[in-house]
Amino acid sequence: MADSGGIAADHLKSFIERIERLEEEKAAIAGDVKEVYAEAKGNGFDTKIMRQIIRLRKMEPNDRQEQEELLDIYMRAVGMVA
Amino acid sequence: MADSGGIAADHLKSFIERIERLEEEKAAIAGDVKEVYAEAKGNGFDTKIMRQIIRLRKMEPNDRQEQEELLDIYMRAVGMVA
Amino acid sequence: MADSGGIAADHLKSFIERIERLEEEKAAIAGDVKEVYAEAKGNGFDTKIMRQIIRLRKMEPNDRQEQEELLDIYMRAVGMVA
Amino acid sequence: MADSGGIAADHLKSFIERIERLEEEKAAIAGDVKEVYAEAKGNGFDTKIMRQIIRLRKMEPNDRQEQEELLDIYMRAVGMVA
Repeated sequence: MADSGGIAADHLKSFIERIERLEEEKAAIAGDVKEVYAEAKGNGFDTKIMRQIIRLRKMEPNDRQEQEELLDIYMRAVGMVA
Repeated sequence: MADSGGIAADHLKSFIERIERLEEEKAAIAGDVKEVYAEAKGNGFDTKIMRQIIRLRKMEPNDRQEQEELLDIYMRAVGMVA
Repeated sequence: MADSGGIAADHLKSFIERIERLEEEKAAIAGDVKEVYAEAKGNGFDTKIMRQIIRLRKMEPNDRQEQEELLDIYMRAVGMVA
Repeated sequence: MADSGGIAADHLKSFIERIERLEEEKAAIAGDVKEVYAEAKGNGFDTKIMRQIIRLRKMEPNDRQEQEELLDIYMRAVGMVA
């Protein structure tokens, strides 16, 4: 293992290359996500609402229900709903 | 103080409005920053490098020097510089 | 105006310093926002819901209404509500 | 294909589930990246500098060289280096 300026060069290079490969895979998947959204949009779906759905589905149903109720209370308090 | 659904409506509204005013001020300043960059660009300056300068000026000179040296060592280690 | 390496040094420095001052002001306001949220939290308000309220208040009431209805339709479609 | 509130429910659900699967894969890879950085840190490497190396390796060598030279010129102009 070559040593350069006090650090283990081969070891560092191996870490860097592992991260680069993983980042490439991640970018490829991000591209796939983008394509699915584009396809959904092409089928007439609203992708902004889809993103909300996906965020809400990650929550526990009870937590989601509680949050919706609290949001409703706050909206009434500041006069956003009658 | 009106009470709506168990929360103190006036108090909540006051907090919300204070935050909204502050966010407006912040957005105005962000707009000013953008304008200064645009003016600098119009005068031929490279705004990407300007951002680097601003980031580097926030660091202690010693820390910056150390970081530059370490970056140089790592670049040599992975074969980016001869 | 001094010239350094082909660029107008004083002019560049002036742009940099203007941006730094604006960024400081922006950071101070961001700190104020944080304090108001902390104060609201200390008064028993849910800051996550407050952020939702602030986001929703930026929208046109009609747009907000439409978005809520569409969200409800989508939630039913994917079986999130009965 | 069931229809709910004017949208094609099954089709929407299928898009949502495809995105959720991809997002899970992406999150798993992001977790792997984090682990490699943690392992590198455990071996004494500076992960902040590693991130800089990874960013710099994405650039064309000529572009990187040009940017470094311009940064040096700007640093001299604002008095950061003698």
